Amino acid sequence: MLRSIPPILSPDLLWTLRAMGHGDDIVIADANFPATSMGARCHRLDGITATDVLSAILTVLPLDSFVPDPAIVMQVVGDPDVVPPVVAAFQTIVNTTADTPVKLASLERFDFYDRAKSAFAVVQTGESRLYGNIILKKGVIGA
Amino acid sequence: MLRSIPPILSPDLLWTLRAMGHGDDIVIADANFPATSMGARCHRLDGITATDVLSAILTVLPLDSFVPDPAIVMQVVGDPDVVPPVVAAFQTIVNTTADTPVKLASLERFDFYDRAKSAFAVVQTGESRLYGNIILKKGVIGA
Amino acid sequence: MLRSIPPILSPDLLWTLRAMGHGDDIVIADANFPATSMGARCHRLDGITATDVLSAILTVLPLDSFVPDPAIVMQVVGDPDVVPPVVAAFQTIVNTTADTPVKLASLERFDFYDRAKSAFAVVQTGESRLYGNIILKKGVIGA
Amino acid sequence: MLRSIPPILSPDLLWTLRAMGHGDDIVIADANFPATSMGARCHRLDGITATDVLSAILTVLPLDSFVPDPAIVMQVVGDPDVVPPVVAAFQTIVNTTADTPVKLASLERFDFYDRAKSAFAVVQTGESRLYGNIILKKGVIGA
Amino acid sequence: MLRSIPPILSPDLLWTLRAMGHGDDIVIADANFPATSMGARCHRLDGITATDVLSAILTVLPLDSFVPDPAIVMQVVGDPDVVPPVVAAFQTIVNTTADTPVKLASLERFDFYDRAKSAFAVVQTGESRLYGNIILKKGVIGA
Amino acid sequence: MLRSIPPILSPDLLWTLRAMGHGDDIVIADANFPATSMGARCHRLDGITATDVLSAILTVLPLDSFVPDPAIVMQVVGDPDVVPPVVAAFQTIVNTTADTPVKLASLERFDFYDRAKSAFAVVQTGESRLYGNIILKKGVIGA
Amino acid sequence: MLRSIPPILSPDLLWTLRAMGHGDDIVIADANFPATSMGARCHRLDGITATDVLSAILTVLPLDSFVPDPAIVMQVVGDPDVVPPVVAAFQTIVNTTADTPVKLASLERFDFYDRAKSAFAVVQTGESRLYGNIILKKGVIGA
Amino acid sequence: MLRSIPPILSPDLLWTLRAMGHGDDIVIADANFPATSMGARCHRLDGITATDVLSAILTVLPLDSFVPDPAIVMQVVGDPDVVPPVVAAFQTIVNTTADTPVKLASLERFDFYDRAKSAFAVVQTGESRLYGNIILKKGVIGA
Amino acid sequence: MLRSIPPILSPDLLWTLRAMGHGDDIVIADANFPATSMGARCHRLDGITATDVLSAILTVLPLDSFVPDPAIVMQVVGDPDVVPPVVAAFQTIVNTTADTPVKLASLERFDFYDRAKSAFAVVQTGESRLYGNIILKKGVIGA
Amino acid sequence: MLRSIPPILSPDLLWTLRAMGHGDDIVIADANFPATSMGARCHRLDGITATDVLSAILTVLPLDSFVPDPAIVMQVVGDPDVVPPVVAAFQTIVNTTADTPVKLASLERFDFYDRAKSAFAVVQTGESRLYGNIILKKGVIGA
Repeated sequence: MLRSIPPILSPDLLWTLRAMGHGDDIVIADANFPATSMGARCHRLDGITATDVLSAILTVLPLDSFVPDPAIVMQVVGDPDVVPPVVAAFQTIVNTTADTPVKLASLERFDFYDRAKSAFAVVQTGESRLYGNIILKKGVIGA
Repeated sequence: MLRSIPPILSPDLLWTLRAMGHGDDIVIADANFPATSMGARCHRLDGITATDVLSAILTVLPLDSFVPDPAIVMQVVGDPDVVPPVVAAFQTIVNTTADTPVKLASLERFDFYDRAKSAFAVVQTGESRLYGNIILKKGVIGA
Repeated sequence: MLRSIPPILSPDLLWTLRAMGHGDDIVIADANFPATSMGARCHRLDGITATDVLSAILTVLPLDSFVPDPAIVMQVVGDPDVVPPVVAAFQTIVNTTADTPVKLASLERFDFYDRAKSAFAVVQTGESRLYGNIILKKGVIGA
Repeated sequence: MLRSIPPILSPDLLWTLRAMGHGDDIVIADANFPATSMGARCHRLDGITATDVLSAILTVLPLDSFVPDPAIVMQVVGDPDVVPPVVAAFQTIVNTTADTPVKLASLERFDFYDRAKSAFAVVQTGESRLYGNIILKKGVIGA
Repeated sequence: MLRSIPPILSPDLLWTLRAMGHGDDIVIADANFPATSMGARCHRLDGITATDVLSAILTVLPLDSFVPDPAIVMQVVGDPDVVPPVVAAFQTIVNTTADTPVKLASLERFDFYDRAKSAFAVVQTGESRLYGNIILKKGVIGA
Repeated sequence: MLRSIPPILSPDLLWTLRAMGHGDDIVIADANFPATSMGARCHRLDGITATDVLSAILTVLPLDSFVPDPAIVMQVVGDPDVVPPVVAAFQTIVNTTADTPVKLASLERFDFYDRAKSAFAVVQTGESRLYGNIILKKGVIGA
Repeated sequence: MLRSIPPILSPDLLWTLRAMGHGDDIVIADANFPATSMGARCHRLDGITATDVLSAILTVLPLDSFVPDPAIVMQVVGDPDVVPPVVAAFQTIVNTTADTPVKLASLERFDFYDRAKSAFAVVQTGESRLYGNIILKKGVIGA
Repeated sequence: MLRSIPPILSPDLLWTLRAMGHGDDIVIADANFPATSMGARCHRLDGITATDVLSAILTVLPLDSFVPDPAIVMQVVGDPDVVPPVVAAFQTIVNTTADTPVKLASLERFDFYDRAKSAFAVVQTGESRLYGNIILKKGVIGA
Repeated sequence: MLRSIPPILSPDLLWTLRAMGHGDDIVIADANFPATSMGARCHRLDGITATDVLSAILTVLPLDSFVPDPAIVMQVVGDPDVVPPVVAAFQTIVNTTADTPVKLASLERFDFYDRAKSAFAVVQTGESRLYGNIILKKGVIGA
Repeated sequence: MLRSIPPILSPDLLWTLRAMGHGDDIVIADANFPATSMGARCHRLDGITATDVLSAILTVLPLDSFVPDPAIVMQVVGDPDVVPPVVAAFQTIVNTTADTPVKLASLERFDFYDRAKSAFAVVQTGESRLYGNIILKKGVIGA
């Protein structure tokens, strides 16, 4: 454990967050997400909710202000406009924790997978609520 | 996720529990334990308590009945007879969950490290209670 | 060996089943199937029938309910409508063991190979009955 | 599958049997044996009995005639003279299948482990009968 | 060395023959063939003729009866209809040793290379006779 | 770059600091130190002073309070009692930045090397001042 | 440290500069640049400015005189003609240090990324000034 | 060193020359050539002229007689018909040392790079004369 | 194949012979020798006699003249003074082919194994004559 | 090639010289030296004399002034006091090129090997003069 760094951030996850640069994506995925087959680096945080992971990551990761949608969730299959409870919770955390709060955008399930395949890394959590997935694009920290 | 298998057991940890044989040791370690430098396989379960991990592991792992002490904790430095709260919780879980309940034995801190260095694997949890470490020796399952 | 987990499930196969996510495919293949050249992870269970492997896997793996055909067999070359004995046995096992029983779909031999090449893993069994091959798509486990 | 070679002999096991030379040991181990932690190459044949594996291996492997005890089993802990049923079955197979039938020798459990640690390979079977372990020393084939 | 298995079949080559499945190709190549640059697994048998290797392989490998041409040689550059002595010798061995004797088919030099690049493996022999190359497609062994 | 984490801490160094446990050592070394040949993980921070690195590390790393000397420098060869300027600067930083300020202990040059060889990692800085080396022992963070 | 070689040039960076040939590109990137995801070799020089790194590299690296634009910077997003202070500093260094001084060319942000993806290596510096990125093409040294 | 083999041929280069087959290319490159970024195997012979390397290689390597141009040099940029001194020296060596002397062909600089990218290997010499690059295609050795 | 180099010398074996230096040992072993378990590099030449391999190696390898016994064979178990036919053939080849002919020395079987374990490499041949093993120590080639 | 760095210093050798620290040894070895079996990193400079390599290395490497003998050669076997011509040439180069000229010390052949086994690296040159071996200990560069 380290001083002032959330203990949920494992050594591998800290490495990834620090090595990512402007415009790189990271996926926080629920327990059912096919994270290993995405091809990207896969960090596991079994047993932890996606909302706890999002809170921890946003304390250190800046969001990208060069694009309109730096945070994207997965649409419910067959009902793209519904907002599942876990997604509502994501929005609350982004509003309160992100350096630059934004409204969450969304992608259809297989479009979300395609985007995830080119991400820098996927964090597989133990989130048991369905649709507990979110993609974050890293921003810059100025001089 | 799989049917009937505790979701805390990650792919790597399941591999280890299944590959271990009679007499192999596994260490469940707290967040301050020097797990990486033990040399053994190190599986991380950041953010989860050692007691939750112990419960999950004992649902699948048989304890060794060929030895008197198949479950061993670390003694408090300078006060070897005290029973820290997390150790008391370990004892309760072993009593209720293990296939063969036993009284926990204990080892001095550096003797515990030496034993851990020859273990099959160490599971580093997010346990924040000090002395949240326990070694389990795997038993056999008969015909 | 572990408590309550079918001993046919080897360490590597358990790892794979646990790491797979929603929509990932696994192939159970007979002894003549070109499993190594598919490119996917290949786990061998020489000497065991494909039906025994199917039974063991379905005790832990949920089938995908988002698609109409989560279980697919290979058509007999030159006679696509015949149902070989091993396939009939597959259907019986799916009916009795799967979380969501379904009617097996089928693919022409080389279409089956193409599908297998993008699978998460192939399990090569010792099945000596011809056409003893089946693809399963993993489902989700709800909150 | 290959013509005239027992299908139980997997690609990795065939490699090992062919690569072994005069005096190299191979261990056939039961399902509870700590095979992975022996350090040697570990080949798994989950779900197959040790007796079936012994029969298959002896059809291709010559036993060493330079030493008095080329085949060794593990003694029952606390009762070294008893002959468990699986060991009796081993003796029958050696008598009928080996190129040079011999009486099985035996070693105490931890001496057996020490010998196994310097073996060329360990084959972990699905043998559920306790003490289903045997070490074979490879012999020569003359001009 | 092993009982009843031709000693020319090295550990790596045995592994390959056993791991190949229905429809996988293996190339037996002469000493001048660009085996390493084909990309496939390359097993070397320097100093041995391609005809000796063909004989040894056909004692264990079934030919594919699902295709008309499971055995293919390379055409002489500029004279595709001539039958070089080593090819005539290949035909004699196939006639006498294969489980299902067939007439050898042939491919133009660069078509032969393209086919070899997708093979399971190439065996580079010490064959000094030009055009001493043949591709074999593995068949099935029934129940 | 990350919010609130000193940018000098590279991805690999953050990984190491987070993966270290109670009692693990890390060495901050000057530009002339034989870091690569110590055998431990070697992280390079060429061009940065050892004092800047010490400040950054102590903002996140707790010092071990179980031992009397959690911070150790190298003695000047031939003059063990002298305090080089860079060591004086180290003491000031420890006094102001460490969670538990301590007086620096010291070791003879080759004893320092022996201690470094069993460290978790060495950070090679660009420090050009001679004797700019210090070993830190990680402490615990309580519940 | 070595005689007459700038100490900022780390072992890995020296290897890269020496191994590069005529026409190979190297990218000097600021602290926000997505260097790891470019795919090229990534050398880190955390904590050092891009201008210091440029000066050190140009003391040993010849610029390519076969192309008109051997040194290229990234255009400001939305304002391609502005010259940020760090780019002005780059131009001064090139004028005074390069073997063949040239006027810096520029590329749009994503064109710059595409060019960086085919570079020989990327050096990630600790440069905190935005747009502190430059690509250099290596030239030849005559007989 | 070995009897009768030119000592310039290093272990890795000998391996490559022996493993190459009919039609495989090898590039002998000057000190400025971008050998590492070609992707092929790269063997370095720093400090030796390309002409010395050509002489050594041709004592063991047969040239391909199936193609009209088994030896190809790089054209001078902007003056494709000029013959640089090092190329003239190459022609003399081919005339006197090759098993089948041929007139050197030539390729434009970037066509030469494309051809080199599909070569079996590149040998980077210390040749300081510009345009000291040549591609050789290996031939066959008959029975 | 290469001009003037015996085709039995495979790419890996040529690499080894060229990389060996003064005083390094190479073992030529028969088909029953436990070559893989010696730990050294193992090159296979299945199907070729040890005498053919010895002849080919001695055409390029100088024997060490700094020691009295640069060539050593294995004594027959139980009859150390007998000279098996293959050893007599070895002596003839050394007499006629080595740069410095010597009388073969001999070692007891397990002493021979110990010597082989520290060799640079072992060449496993297809030699079927028992005791077809010989160790050669490489010499120097003067200016 | 790089500006102002001797072209004999290859990428790997430059890496090594830069990564070495105070007290690390590097061996420059002749063409007969058993460099590969020393265990250390082995860099080859086939075809170049040891004296040329020594000159190039000493232009960048400082010698250790903390020990009396930072440069050591190998004694002639059987005549330890003779000074071979290549050693005399080494002394001249050290006198003229080293930052701190010293008289060469010497070690008996096998003591020299033992010292070389713990070196940071060995550079195998093409030096054909016998006894063309020298060990250099790296020194420090002050502030």
